[in-house]
Amino acid sequence: MKLGRIGVQGPDGNVARLVLVLPEEGRVIDLKKAKRLALHSGGATQEAANRLAEALFPQSMSAAIALGDTFLQAARSVDAERRDEASIDIGSVSWLPASDPSVVRDGLTFIGHIKGFHEKIGHAPTPSLLKVPGYFKGTPHTVIAHEAEVPWPGYIEHMDYELELGYVIGRRGGNLRPENARDYLFGITIFNDFSARDRQAIEMPIQMGPTKCKDFAYGIGPWITTIDEFADLDAIPMEVRVNGETWGKGNSANKLWTVEELIAWSSLGEQLEPGDVIGSGTMGGGSALELGRKLQPGDVVELEVGGIGTLRNRFGQPQPDIWWPEERKPFM
Amino acid sequence: MKLGRIGVQGPDGNVARLVLVLPEEGRVIDLKKAKRLALHSGGATQEAANRLAEALFPQSMSAAIALGDTFLQAARSVDAERRDEASIDIGSVSWLPASDPSVVRDGLTFIGHIKGFHEKIGHAPTPSLLKVPGYFKGTPHTVIAHEAEVPWPGYIEHMDYELELGYVIGRRGGNLRPENARDYLFGITIFNDFSARDRQAIEMPIQMGPTKCKDFAYGIGPWITTIDEFADLDAIPMEVRVNGETWGKGNSANKLWTVEELIAWSSLGEQLEPGDVIGSGTMGGGSALELGRKLQPGDVVELEVGGIGTLRNRFGQPQPDIWWPEERKPFM
Repeated sequence: MKLGRIGVQGPDGNVARLVLVLPEEGRVIDLKKAKRLALHSGGATQEAANRLAEALFPQSMSAAIALGDTFLQAARSVDAERRDEASIDIGSVSWLPASDPSVVRDGLTFIGHIKGFHEKIGHAPTPSLLKVPGYFKGTPHTVIAHEAEVPWPGYIEHMDYELELGYVIGRRGGNLRPENARDYLFGITIFNDFSARDRQAIEMPIQMGPTKCKDFAYGIGPWITTIDEFADLDAIPMEVRVNGETWGKGNSANKLWTVEELIAWSSLGEQLEPGDVIGSGTMGGGSALELGRKLQPGDVVELEVGGIGTLRNRFGQPQPDIWWPEERKPFM
Repeated sequence: MKLGRIGVQGPDGNVARLVLVLPEEGRVIDLKKAKRLALHSGGATQEAANRLAEALFPQSMSAAIALGDTFLQAARSVDAERRDEASIDIGSVSWLPASDPSVVRDGLTFIGHIKGFHEKIGHAPTPSLLKVPGYFKGTPHTVIAHEAEVPWPGYIEHMDYELELGYVIGRRGGNLRPENARDYLFGITIFNDFSARDRQAIEMPIQMGPTKCKDFAYGIGPWITTIDEFADLDAIPMEVRVNGETWGKGNSANKLWTVEELIAWSSLGEQLEPGDVIGSGTMGGGSALELGRKLQPGDVVELEVGGIGTLRNRFGQPQPDIWWPEERKPFM
């Protein structure tokens, strides 16, 4: 199944709806509405049908995934019926980020990108990269949806995309092992780790992780494909286009750490939550940096991933008048 | 006012209650209960009184703070009455983390610690530290309360504390400036950035920020003191004791970046949320690393901060049998 989130107008403003996505039929099905109608047909009052449908298909994808198999079964029963009354033309919907993670994590697993990145910046990779599956944490408040404009804070000069898979966590878990990590993987979405290379060069030496070079936007969408639909996690086709031109093409092979190792490592000493998204790290050749290119305001980036679809975003104009700190004098 | 969170037993398990803390009277006041009783005295039915009291004083501190002045006014009206029927002996309560931040951030502002840390690890600080107010992001899922046992994942050898102030955000905001950042500061709590120095030495060179060396626990408590009670943010007394012995003593003076600059910087290109906690960075001499010492299982760490109180935590025993990744062979 393909599962997504859209915004619809309600009496108190926009509300989110979870949808079953049927790209081949050109429509999505509003899961809550379909379930409410089915429950009402089965004898429930409108009020009771609405209450149970809302509990099964809340506004938050993470909250829905947290129901475990109950959510998947309920979605499958809607899929089996595919009611026309709950259908919406796919071309008319307003997408929301496919998940609303409590924490955004982003790994570094594709050997091609690690090589390409370090060749470009002229540094050897740290030996630490061979010891542990490194990742950074991003703010969850700037995740953006398919077709959303990418904000461009005015302090950014050198803008880039990063083509990644987004592993969506299905169950709460800590101290996992690679042998059981696959059971915690709900599905895969497309993840664009937008990156400001000029800011990154300043921030990374502090060693506390990216902040202003990454936290302005994380693209998550267009929807999630459930994990049962992927035959081989190391053979997923991936491609990036800028303004319609192919800038990178490859697949999900050649990883330094497996998906299961990245998930297990992320869970050590803490816990993963349903709906959390872990970026795979950039595909080899999946950034403009590796090509010696950069993006301009108004550019359109499309990330296409086999078995999922295409995540498309256009960059906005640089936002002016943002405060910037004054450099301090050395103190030691 | 001093505002905290405690756990109480309900018919479906533990629930959180927000409390007004009166250390000098040896009691806390259950804010929801006090409000419910006051509303009922004023003519509300039990059911309606309960509904409104829950909306004003929900289980989440962040959700309460998100009400803005309405929350503070409601808490002040409870403070004005100080009802005995809603009081609980302070010695009998089970504390929860004083806030439930959506994102944990932790800065690096005290010059004394930056000097002491770099002298100890034998590296010069990066020039980037003079350019921007660096911070890292921690997972919000491992925040622990006053008197909670600190988990000790078995892969950690060299355990440390860090004595910090926790700035609690009061309003949603992005692209703030230092001149208006103070309006977004709800209060201050005590923040213990527990740190595994052996793991940190491996992780930091990856430059993606701390993960396993920090994300196992962040101490936040014992409660929040609202910002109106602090006369001078650069003159707050701070002290750390280990097993009753003073290991560090100082105050909040001598910062590389002001509180307002740290808050404004954290908000650039993204947004701070009510209840978010930003650590000040460690006070000079506020870590055992600077003393050449380390902690053992069972040690008790007390962080005392003037105008707030004491955050006390005992370390648990190392947790065995955690998976660890196998080192990879160099590939370039």
